[in-house]
Amino acid sequence: MSTTLSRTETYSLLSLALACVGVLANTFQGDGEPLIASIAFSGLAFCSCYALIRWLGQAFMRRGFKGKDMSKLKQHEIPETMGAVCAMVYLFILVFFIPWPFYKDIVAATSGGGNRDVMKDLDAVETGRLLHRFPHNKLASYLSAILSLQSIVLLGIGDDLFDIRWRHKVLIPAIAVIPMLVVYFVDFGVTKMVVPTPLRPYLGELFDLGWLYYVYMALLSIFSSNSINILAGINGIEVAQSLVIAALIVFNDVLYLSPFTPYPHPATDSHLFSLYLLLPFIGVSLALLMHNWYPAKVFVGDTYCYFAGMVFAVDGILGHFSKTLILLLLPQGFNFVYSAPQLFHLVPCPRHRLPHFNARTGLLECSRVEFKKPLARPIAECLKLLHRLRLLDVEVDGEGNVVSSSNFTIINLWLVWFGPMREDRLALGLLGFQTACGLLGLFIRHRMALLVFTQDNW
Amino acid sequence: MSTTLSRTETYSLLSLALACVGVLANTFQGDGEPLIASIAFSGLAFCSCYALIRWLGQAFMRRGFKGKDMSKLKQHEIPETMGAVCAMVYLFILVFFIPWPFYKDIVAATSGGGNRDVMKDLDAVETGRLLHRFPHNKLASYLSAILSLQSIVLLGIGDDLFDIRWRHKVLIPAIAVIPMLVVYFVDFGVTKMVVPTPLRPYLGELFDLGWLYYVYMALLSIFSSNSINILAGINGIEVAQSLVIAALIVFNDVLYLSPFTPYPHPATDSHLFSLYLLLPFIGVSLALLMHNWYPAKVFVGDTYCYFAGMVFAVDGILGHFSKTLILLLLPQGFNFVYSAPQLFHLVPCPRHRLPHFNARTGLLECSRVEFKKPLARPIAECLKLLHRLRLLDVEVDGEGNVVSSSNFTIINLWLVWFGPMREDRLALGLLGFQTACGLLGLFIRHRMALLVFTQDNW
Repeated sequence: MSTTLSRTETYSLLSLALACVGVLANTFQGDGEPLIASIAFSGLAFCSCYALIRWLGQAFMRRGFKGKDMSKLKQHEIPETMGAVCAMVYLFILVFFIPWPFYKDIVAATSGGGNRDVMKDLDAVETGRLLHRFPHNKLASYLSAILSLQSIVLLGIGDDLFDIRWRHKVLIPAIAVIPMLVVYFVDFGVTKMVVPTPLRPYLGELFDLGWLYYVYMALLSIFSSNSINILAGINGIEVAQSLVIAALIVFNDVLYLSPFTPYPHPATDSHLFSLYLLLPFIGVSLALLMHNWYPAKVFVGDTYCYFAGMVFAVDGILGHFSKTLILLLLPQGFNFVYSAPQLFHLVPCPRHRLPHFNARTGLLECSRVEFKKPLARPIAECLKLLHRLRLLDVEVDGEGNVVSSSNFTIINLWLVWFGPMREDRLALGLLGFQTACGLLGLFIRHRMALLVFTQDNW
Repeated sequence: MSTTLSRTETYSLLSLALACVGVLANTFQGDGEPLIASIAFSGLAFCSCYALIRWLGQAFMRRGFKGKDMSKLKQHEIPETMGAVCAMVYLFILVFFIPWPFYKDIVAATSGGGNRDVMKDLDAVETGRLLHRFPHNKLASYLSAILSLQSIVLLGIGDDLFDIRWRHKVLIPAIAVIPMLVVYFVDFGVTKMVVPTPLRPYLGELFDLGWLYYVYMALLSIFSSNSINILAGINGIEVAQSLVIAALIVFNDVLYLSPFTPYPHPATDSHLFSLYLLLPFIGVSLALLMHNWYPAKVFVGDTYCYFAGMVFAVDGILGHFSKTLILLLLPQGFNFVYSAPQLFHLVPCPRHRLPHFNARTGLLECSRVEFKKPLARPIAECLKLLHRLRLLDVEVDGEGNVVSSSNFTIINLWLVWFGPMREDRLALGLLGFQTACGLLGLFIRHRMALLVFTQDNW
C-alpha cells in the first residue's frame, strides 16, 4: 500500500472536507441545525480517517501490527488493527460535535464556584424539527456513550497487544459498557419493559426488570460485539456488514423523523440521538472499507469488530430500540448458533475456519474439518440430518461413519450452497443476505408489532 | 520482581479491600455519604492497582514494555509503562463512584422515549454537609473529566507504542483536554476572570477572556503534564512528586470543607469535586510508588506523567482553582525554565541528562555536558554568572573558556548543592523541597490574596 495519497485522492478529500467545513460554518448562521452538522461531521470523519489510514499504515507495521492475507496468491504483509485509527477519529468527531445538539446558552449567568443561577427555559431551546436541540440533561447520556466506546477501544487495543484468551475476550464488551450502565442508572434508571399483549394477564402492562435490565444491556453489548467478531475472515466482511446494519438502523431512524410522521413524536429525540452516533460511524467505516475491500490493503483487527458492535449496542440502548437491534443482528445470531458446536468443542474445531483458497482457480472453497476420531453416535446423526437439510456438507465413508464436514460458519455454508467463488463475490452475497434479513426484520417489527403489542410506537 | 503476591501482601490487601467494601455497603444505609464512599473507593483503588501491577508485569515485559535501570549495579530488565495499569484502575474507580455523588432518584418517572416527566426538587437531594450530593447537571462535567483522562491514557499508550517525536509529544495533553473544553463550553461556558485590584481601573471588575480562556486551559494542561514529565529520571520521583502535589491540593480542598469554614460556601461543590478526583488518584499512585520507589521494581512510563499532569489540570479547571494549581507546580515550572537552554538547544543537550551513577561508591553524581565546540561569548558569560549564583557547576580551562557544566535539571542542581548521594536520599530531598514550596505557595495564596484581590474566596 502506498503511504501517501495520490493527487486525485488529495484533491477529492480536500474538496469534500472543504465542502463539509463550509456546511458547518453555515450552521453558525441563525440557530444551527444539528442534523446538518452531523452529516458534515461525517464527511470530515470520512476524509480524515481515509488519509490517516494511509499515513499511519507504515508506523503500525513497524510496531508489529501486521499480517498476511491467506487467501491471496502473493502474500504481502499489510497493516493490521487499522480499526483503531477509525475508532479514534470517530471518538474525536463525536466530541467536536457536542456544541451543535447541546446548546450552550442554557446557562446564562453564574455566581462563580460552579453554580448556575439563571437557566433558560427548555422551550426557548427546542425550536422546530431539524433545528431540534437536546435538553441539556441528555448530555450525560451522550458522554457516557463516548466513554463506553473509548473504553472498548482501550480494551480492544489491550487485546491486540496482549492476546487475551478467548474466554476472557468475550467479556470485554461487558466491561466497556459499564460507564454507560452506571450513567443510565443515575441519569435515567428506567428498567420497566412494555409487556406483550398475550402475557399481560400474568405480568401486567409494564414489567419492572430491575437489575436484570442491566444484565440485559450488558448481554446485548456482548452479543453485538462478538457476533460481528465471529462473522469475519474474508476481505471487507467485518466493515461491510457493520455498514449494512448501520444503514438499516439509519433507515429505521429516518422513518421516525420523516415529514410523514406526526410531530412531536415521543421517540424523536431517541432517534435523532441514534443518528448522531451512526452517521459519523458510517463515515469512518466507509473510509476503512475502501482500504479493506477485496483485495485488502489493510486489516481491521478485533478492535474494529468490538468497536462497531459497541456502537450498535450503545445506540440501541440509548435510542431505546434494543429489540429492533436484535432483529437486525439475526444473521450474526444465526452464525453464532451455527458455530456453537465447534466453539464449544462438541465437534473438533480447527485453528482456522476461513474458507480454503484454491491457488489454481483463484476461488475460495469451503474449508473442511476432518474427524480423525469417530464422532459420538448422536452427534454424527445430527450432522447427517444437517446435511439432509442442506445446512452442512458431510462426507460419509462406506461404513456410514462421518469422516469430514464443512466448517460451521455461515461463510462456509454460503460456499456449500453456491459453490466456489471469488472472495468479493462471496462477501457481496453475504451482504445481500444481511440486507434482505434486515429489511424483513424491520418490516416485521413495524407491521407485526401490533400482533403482540397494543400499538407500534412509530 | 515476583509475579505473585506474598501471603502477607495477599492478606493485607484482602483485609483492606474488605474493610472498604464494608464501608461502601454502609453508605447504602440512610442517605449515603459520597465523601466516605470516595475514601473507600480509594482504598479499593490502592488494593486492585497494587495486585494488578504484580500480576501484569510479566505480560508487559513479554510485549516489549521493559527497560533497564541505569543507576544500579545489577541491571535487570523490569516492566515499563505500568502507569497505564494505574490509570485504567483509576478510570474504572471513577466510573463506579458515579452513583454516590449523583443521585439516581432525581428522575422519578418517565413516559418512555427518554423523556423525564417528574423531577424531584434539588433541595430534596442536597442534604447536609458530608452527605452533600451534586446537582445532576454536574454529571456532564464529571464525565468530561473522565473522558479527557481516558483520552490522555489512549494517546499516552500510543506514544509509548509509536515513539512520537518530542515536539508532537508536547501537544498530546492539548488534544486530550479537548473533550473537557467542549463540555465546559456547552455546559458552563463562563470565561470571565476576576481582575486583580491594581488592574481594575483599566479592565473593570470582571474581564471576559472569551476564547482565550480555552487557550489558557489547554496551555495549563500542556504545562501540567509536561512539567511532571520533565522532572523525571530517578526511581520514584515521577510518582512521589505527583503524590506531594495531590496531597497539597487535598489539603487546600479540606480547608474549604472543614467545620471552621462557614457553610454553605460557594466553593464547597468545586472542592468536593476536586476531592472525588484526587482521592482515588492518591490510592493508585501509592500502589505504584511502592513498586517504583528505590530500588525500582517497575517503571512508570510517560503514560503516568501525562496522566498525573492531566488529573491536576482537569481538577484545577473543574475545581476552579487553576491559579492555585500553578502555584503548586512552581518547582516543576522552575525546572522547565532551568532546562530550557538545553531543551531549545541554546546549549548542547546530551541524549540523557540523568545523574551519573558511580558504581564504586553506589552514589549518584551530577552528570555533565562537555562543550566540544567553544560556546558563543554571551552564553558562556551567562553560564559563568549562573556558576557564581550557585545555580550551575561550570568548569573553565586556563584561557577562561567554559569546557563543561552540570546538566540543566533541578535533579543535577540538587547534587551540585549537596554533593553525591544515594538515589532515594536524592528523591527525598527533592520531595521535601517540593513540599516546602507548595506549603509556601498555599500560604501566599490565602494570606496575600487580599493584597491583589478584594477578598479571598476562602
